[in-house]
Amino acid sequence: MTPPTTIIALMFGPDQPGLVATVSRWIFENGGNIIHADQHRDAEELIFFQRVEWSHADADDQELRRQAALFRAAAEALGMAVQITLSTDRPRIAVMVTKADHCFHDLALRWRAGELPCDLVCVISNHDDLRPAVQTYDGIAFHHVPKSKANKPAAEAEELAILQRHRVDLVVLARYMQVLTPDFLAKSGPVINIHHSFLPAFAGANPYRQAHARGVKLIGATAHYVTPELDEGPIIHQAVDDVSHRHDVTDLRRKGANLEKVVLSTAVLLHLQCRVLAYGRKTVTFD
Amino acid sequence: MTPPTTIIALMFGPDQPGLVATVSRWIFENGGNIIHADQHRDAEELIFFQRVEWSHADADDQELRRQAALFRAAAEALGMAVQITLSTDRPRIAVMVTKADHCFHDLALRWRAGELPCDLVCVISNHDDLRPAVQTYDGIAFHHVPKSKANKPAAEAEELAILQRHRVDLVVLARYMQVLTPDFLAKSGPVINIHHSFLPAFAGANPYRQAHARGVKLIGATAHYVTPELDEGPIIHQAVDDVSHRHDVTDLRRKGANLEKVVLSTAVLLHLQCRVLAYGRKTVTFD
Amino acid sequence: MTPPTTIIALMFGPDQPGLVATVSRWIFENGGNIIHADQHRDAEELIFFQRVEWSHADADDQELRRQAALFRAAAEALGMAVQITLSTDRPRIAVMVTKADHCFHDLALRWRAGELPCDLVCVISNHDDLRPAVQTYDGIAFHHVPKSKANKPAAEAEELAILQRHRVDLVVLARYMQVLTPDFLAKSGPVINIHHSFLPAFAGANPYRQAHARGVKLIGATAHYVTPELDEGPIIHQAVDDVSHRHDVTDLRRKGANLEKVVLSTAVLLHLQCRVLAYGRKTVTFD
Amino acid sequence: MTPPTTIIALMFGPDQPGLVATVSRWIFENGGNIIHADQHRDAEELIFFQRVEWSHADADDQELRRQAALFRAAAEALGMAVQITLSTDRPRIAVMVTKADHCFHDLALRWRAGELPCDLVCVISNHDDLRPAVQTYDGIAFHHVPKSKANKPAAEAEELAILQRHRVDLVVLARYMQVLTPDFLAKSGPVINIHHSFLPAFAGANPYRQAHARGVKLIGATAHYVTPELDEGPIIHQAVDDVSHRHDVTDLRRKGANLEKVVLSTAVLLHLQCRVLAYGRKTVTFD
Repeated sequence: MTPPTTIIALMFGPDQPGLVATVSRWIFENGGNIIHADQHRDAEELIFFQRVEWSHADADDQELRRQAALFRAAAEALGMAVQITLSTDRPRIAVMVTKADHCFHDLALRWRAGELPCDLVCVISNHDDLRPAVQTYDGIAFHHVPKSKANKPAAEAEELAILQRHRVDLVVLARYMQVLTPDFLAKSGPVINIHHSFLPAFAGANPYRQAHARGVKLIGATAHYVTPELDEGPIIHQAVDDVSHRHDVTDLRRKGANLEKVVLSTAVLLHLQCRVLAYGRKTVTFD
Repeated sequence: MTPPTTIIALMFGPDQPGLVATVSRWIFENGGNIIHADQHRDAEELIFFQRVEWSHADADDQELRRQAALFRAAAEALGMAVQITLSTDRPRIAVMVTKADHCFHDLALRWRAGELPCDLVCVISNHDDLRPAVQTYDGIAFHHVPKSKANKPAAEAEELAILQRHRVDLVVLARYMQVLTPDFLAKSGPVINIHHSFLPAFAGANPYRQAHARGVKLIGATAHYVTPELDEGPIIHQAVDDVSHRHDVTDLRRKGANLEKVVLSTAVLLHLQCRVLAYGRKTVTFD
Repeated sequence: MTPPTTIIALMFGPDQPGLVATVSRWIFENGGNIIHADQHRDAEELIFFQRVEWSHADADDQELRRQAALFRAAAEALGMAVQITLSTDRPRIAVMVTKADHCFHDLALRWRAGELPCDLVCVISNHDDLRPAVQTYDGIAFHHVPKSKANKPAAEAEELAILQRHRVDLVVLARYMQVLTPDFLAKSGPVINIHHSFLPAFAGANPYRQAHARGVKLIGATAHYVTPELDEGPIIHQAVDDVSHRHDVTDLRRKGANLEKVVLSTAVLLHLQCRVLAYGRKTVTFD
Repeated sequence: MTPPTTIIALMFGPDQPGLVATVSRWIFENGGNIIHADQHRDAEELIFFQRVEWSHADADDQELRRQAALFRAAAEALGMAVQITLSTDRPRIAVMVTKADHCFHDLALRWRAGELPCDLVCVISNHDDLRPAVQTYDGIAFHHVPKSKANKPAAEAEELAILQRHRVDLVVLARYMQVLTPDFLAKSGPVINIHHSFLPAFAGANPYRQAHARGVKLIGATAHYVTPELDEGPIIHQAVDDVSHRHDVTDLRRKGANLEKVVLSTAVLLHLQCRVLAYGRKTVTFD
């Protein structure tokens, strides 16, 4: 039995009494049935966060979209910022890579296995190396956009054009070794990056070498939204693994690659399921 | 600034459309302000679960208890089974021990540090060994109730009388090495046990020896509600730690003791915060 | 700089005084330089285990093999059972699969990335479904050997012939859903399996369904050598992940698949690096 | 059966061929029987590290100390720096605290339970608050040494005198909130500190507040040797726990306190078992 299509709203705004009741009553009175609802209040900053998911019996896609639009208007009238989608929507994803392919394959295999509810439409790389790897997956276009200091503005313009042509909703940096400009980020829509360390430790380049030099007993990986402040964007997910003096930098890279794959794909799945609300330097993750 | 006293309701019953809206509207219309609400639907068994916590501005303790009673009646009218408490209530706890003291000290120190919102009123043991350890904590009575096959019914009757005299709300088995009878459990109220293995593996006696013989690479601990079926009660919390061939049975016991302390105190805290709903062989844990 | 080729010996036998000294002196007096040495004594069963790795300056492959043969003879004279390889040896691996492809892709990608020092020479499946997936990797043959109760002896004979033709050193069951007979195991050489639970809990079929029904708070995966006793072989590696009431059986399968991949590839790597000694129902894992 | 007394040597120095053989032959020829031996080579810095533990049949304490002295001379002749102890030696420990008592109780209970092979002889605090807590343990002296900017040199002199009077071998900072001067550290012998974060992230004050502000999904604790560079000493052990947006700073402190206890007592045990070699900014931990 297919589960019914649901409407998912993700919203936040200034806290006020009765918000949970107001939202759930609105849905009930409009004929909806709440499947899940989860909320959070930031008691210091007095912000209210909610993820609510509901169905309408016998409603077709058109009716669901009408309901979604009505809800958006009602929530905005309450001062909320709202993201709203249907559970059948499939966001279009672009993956940006350089030469390392482990995170790309991990995402592509999960996508092909139906584990990630999205369309993985294209890969953009500043090198041509991964073209054959990408071409083993039906339906993913590969775009080679070389990048240098000199051509960066032109290269980013080309990348943005590719994103627009593919109508991309989400960009995933799967070990993309170039810094994106604030201008790119302002136009690209949301961008998720995997950083190969337990941020905020070892921000910047060569974190496994830094971790080895410092003699840490755990290494980590961090998936975060990209903001103009390098490695400072809101954290979506993190994980760690044990290391010891027996592990050299190569071992750390191998163990780290395992972490990167799991942490990045978990973060992308949380985003696709509309479970992540970024605000300020943080996220609320309804998992 | 002291946070306001809240009413916490924990309930479950047959799922039906509009439950979230009905509950939140009821609270709003009775002047309450929802602080947290979390719910879950068991999609296979069509059961609805909810934990909801709310405050009333300017309400004194008497008014809050009146509201709680009204809510209970309303929820029961919806077919829900309800547990309801005020955040200022301090359940009275009895700890049952044998000779091992690590879990007892862990609970007692956390209680004394204010980390566990309860009154740890007494310790019952089938041996007298831990009397001096218990007496270093002000306010905890120690009761020695020896137990043998022959005197078990009388001993359990004495234990139940102690629980009643201390008006105990929750019994915690902190490495108590005796099986409680169904009759005891029917009268004692809820009982939480720490089992020194990752259940359902290695149920029964000497789990660390079993784990060592089997050569597992991880050992665990499990906190669960006690039911008449030994080691089969609903699981509240579990954790594991790495082991290797270098660890002998003594090492496993030491590592296991660390796990037991953290897992048991976490489970007791979850129970005290009204976050655990047991149903059938499972729990819903709103953490 | 390429590290020098090393000889790796893995051995165990009855404990006796001076073994470490005897072994290291032998290597030194034959011109070797110990790079790593790790040993373990099972104090209950009085068994000595050692992994020792050494190099010879300026020795070519032929000289190293001569030294390895000399060492084997010397160790056997001490009553030791010995496995011995050169660090440049590349064991030949066959992967057996049914329909699930996540563990296969994980192994194949790691092999192609140079992370697993082996030759992945063939895949054997009782279904034809994964043929196209296998064919995207250059150099891996695909063999379809259908299996039913009726044809099992003939099918296993065909599988053994395939293993022999490919000169396979290690068989990896990457979610192969058929029980291998003791006869097959006697002829196949070592076989590593991934079991989708934290053994010994939930042995047998449908472990994620069992885990969900039992309401556990952690799920696991276990890689072990296959023996005639189903799910009872010596454990090489295990890992777990958190679950809650929010996760249905599908979620458990997805989380479990992540564990299976990491646990299986870790176990295969440990085996390939000659770090695992199986004895009785256990392993010593020099990691 | 009591295990035999062993000699434990922990040493490091410039790598050279045949070291393992030389050491094990020396022990064998002097009548010793190696129980454990573990070594490591830092391939970048060409340093050799070894922990070796051996017994002598029928040797009394005096003979073992004679053997230990002979070994030290032999190892130093090889250019090694050596620490050497008997397994029956019980290092004398001083614990320094301020007001938080969780780490102190954890250490004291483990010491009393026989889990830590040491004599916990005294507690030194810059406040008098924990005197009653300390006095519940027989045999631990409490010393109150108030500290201010003005009296720091005098206070440290008094602390050093206390350490000397108690013949202290190891100082453990169990949430001691004062920075020790390089002069103190030069005279005190080894000092282990617990830092309430996953170093190098969130070094300095209020790490749980920093972690909350940054929105991390994991918090950690780090035990390290203290050096004149604040929070930069060689790391002995680390662990982490999950957190989410639901956890406020108080929750982080409670979860963090659990981590601190386990990480600190693990590090102290590793040190007491002569498993930790500090060199430069790192440790080699033979666990």
